[in-house]
Amino acid sequence: MGREPAPAGLANQRAVRRHNLGVVLRHLSEHGPRSRATIALETGLNKTTVSSLVTELIGFDLVVERGLEQRGTVGRPGQVVELSGDGVVALGLEVNVDYLAVRALDLTGTERHRSLDVRDNRNVPVAKVLDRLAEHAGAALDAVRSEGLRPVGATVALPGIVDAANGTLLRAPNLDWTDVAVVDELRERLSGPSFLLAADNEANLAALAELWEGTARGFSDVLYVSGEIGVGGGIIIGGELFRGQQGFGGEFGHMTVDPGGRPCACGSRGCLETVVGLEALLESAGLDPSRAATTTGSGEPVSTLAGRARAGDEQALATLRESGRWLGIAIASAANLLNFQAVVLGGFFGQLSTWLAAPIARELEVHVLASDWAVPRVLPSTLGPEAAVRGAAAQSLRRVLADPAMAV
Amino acid sequence: MGREPAPAGLANQRAVRRHNLGVVLRHLSEHGPRSRATIALETGLNKTTVSSLVTELIGFDLVVERGLEQRGTVGRPGQVVELSGDGVVALGLEVNVDYLAVRALDLTGTERHRSLDVRDNRNVPVAKVLDRLAEHAGAALDAVRSEGLRPVGATVALPGIVDAANGTLLRAPNLDWTDVAVVDELRERLSGPSFLLAADNEANLAALAELWEGTARGFSDVLYVSGEIGVGGGIIIGGELFRGQQGFGGEFGHMTVDPGGRPCACGSRGCLETVVGLEALLESAGLDPSRAATTTGSGEPVSTLAGRARAGDEQALATLRESGRWLGIAIASAANLLNFQAVVLGGFFGQLSTWLAAPIARELEVHVLASDWAVPRVLPSTLGPEAAVRGAAAQSLRRVLADPAMAV
Repeated sequence: MGREPAPAGLANQRAVRRHNLGVVLRHLSEHGPRSRATIALETGLNKTTVSSLVTELIGFDLVVERGLEQRGTVGRPGQVVELSGDGVVALGLEVNVDYLAVRALDLTGTERHRSLDVRDNRNVPVAKVLDRLAEHAGAALDAVRSEGLRPVGATVALPGIVDAANGTLLRAPNLDWTDVAVVDELRERLSGPSFLLAADNEANLAALAELWEGTARGFSDVLYVSGEIGVGGGIIIGGELFRGQQGFGGEFGHMTVDPGGRPCACGSRGCLETVVGLEALLESAGLDPSRAATTTGSGEPVSTLAGRARAGDEQALATLRESGRWLGIAIASAANLLNFQAVVLGGFFGQLSTWLAAPIARELEVHVLASDWAVPRVLPSTLGPEAAVRGAAAQSLRRVLADPAMAV
Repeated sequence: MGREPAPAGLANQRAVRRHNLGVVLRHLSEHGPRSRATIALETGLNKTTVSSLVTELIGFDLVVERGLEQRGTVGRPGQVVELSGDGVVALGLEVNVDYLAVRALDLTGTERHRSLDVRDNRNVPVAKVLDRLAEHAGAALDAVRSEGLRPVGATVALPGIVDAANGTLLRAPNLDWTDVAVVDELRERLSGPSFLLAADNEANLAALAELWEGTARGFSDVLYVSGEIGVGGGIIIGGELFRGQQGFGGEFGHMTVDPGGRPCACGSRGCLETVVGLEALLESAGLDPSRAATTTGSGEPVSTLAGRARAGDEQALATLRESGRWLGIAIASAANLLNFQAVVLGGFFGQLSTWLAAPIARELEVHVLASDWAVPRVLPSTLGPEAAVRGAAAQSLRRVLADPAMAV
């Protein structure tokens, strides 16, 4: 009765084995070092199969043995296996308005290389910026290869709406870039690397990083908001990144909060970004907004603002209260639509969360309709400015966890 | 290798058969009348199985034969079978601020009974309103039973945040109801009916109705917005109703659009509802807002407004332009987060869409960041004020399509 299962031919057996390689590798990634016998017990795969899969994963340089299991269990203690930090790496590359950043992460999430290039990318020809990005990427590849590591992927984090399927940046209002085939351009400059290149919105990648290894671990429904020159957003629903029908969702910074307000770089008016973006913040605090252009990377003007707030400067404190109020209003509107459990304050919002969290929480209490049953928690980012570039690298590593055979 | 499939025992065979009853019934629902042979061909189930399943569905009064298939196919023409309109019905019940409504729909979606009770439900004790709802439901049950129809479920549409799992209305700001166990209260008043009772937010149910049988057919990602005394919203993502982590999502009417604006019935300030809800609209158009209370059901004051707009009355036209502008701003904010394909204008927004659609579209063009690639289409509701109550009945009928054996 019903549809017949496909015949279990050779092709199918190979597909099952390939799938099970991922089951074992992800099990080690999620639960930590353990013996083959424990893996067999916990995954429901049989022992012989697990042994053979682990041998294959060791051959791929994805897994290593690291000594005997220390447990009061019956029988011989087994060799513990764990993810290898010395096999493969992935690159996270970030193009932002005022910096370029690169991180190489190995399979254990350990950073193996980094570079940061703080410079205003506005008014620089696109090709020049991509040249510099490729130079940084090339240097990172040389560095990790000289350590004997094998690159298996790179993801570019971009500050705008991205056609992720094609690796194209459609529009980045603050960079004033339109229709840039970032992945193709980078592939050419790196002379066609053998590994997979991808691109995504930077706040999406930062949201994933906070979910996977940051403050949002253990939550399933999260709004990540990020303060930089622009204001970005990333939405996690049911533990997965939510993109929207064509991938243009999550643009939290362009919610309208002040309909009669200031023009936004996007061409609209009164976007949240116009009241809580870095330039608006500095201006309101009496700091020079033109300094915003080249220092997000180092966070200098934000540190100055934080210092003044700490010293009790009234203008600084008023600016932060007002920013928190606007952020709270926008987060509440999003919460009324999406009913998430937590909001993560990223970028400089994270650095300033000491002052922003309380006014945000106050607005949530007032504006969230279901506030008697569910007010989102306000969580400062734990990854800070690292979030997007780490998320980018981690996204590429996740592809290896999903299908270890692609790392060969 | 891998996990073993469960042994195909008797219990499992029964589960497969029960599942396949749903496959056949949904196939008829989605694709219309056809022969057993055609069903077998299209579903991949074998002919003997399909014949036996159809016989069972006929026994459940869910399917009937209706004559020979008229097609130029080889072989004997088969008996065509189709959904039965004369077997089962489900009730949609709606409690709104200023009316109660009931519809009974049979499995073909045909209305078999209706009642509407236009009366202000504010300042009436909750128990009285539920008494009246139960009277209407009881009369509907008597009516359909006297036609030989069998009730298989009822869903209550409610204007507030609903704990759908427990059938409880947590909060309806405009009714000023809090924590009302609507399903339990109704079950008691109906003396414990044998069929399933459920409750959900009215805009959620209206959104589903527009998706299943209204203007949003064929779309997968849709925002439904509804103008009544309150302003409701329902979000469809990937063809499914989106509820949010605890079921409190979709509260479009309580997005803040005017932070310094008027107090809202919800206790907040500047909600979209305060500028485009029925009372605000009538007031702005110079009509008596107190008339809003008891006439949404008949749509009378909205018809008056539409008449004035049609006659070129400048105050009416200005009111509608301004409402469209506010709606457009809020829809654009939601679109920046959710990237849906279409927005459906329901409730009185649908009645007034001739005047609202253009200003909404204008704001979407300005405020949606990805507007060069994807501006949501603005669609007037085709179900009008019927949407929520039809969606409620259809929701109960869908349970039968999912598991026909429950209709017995």
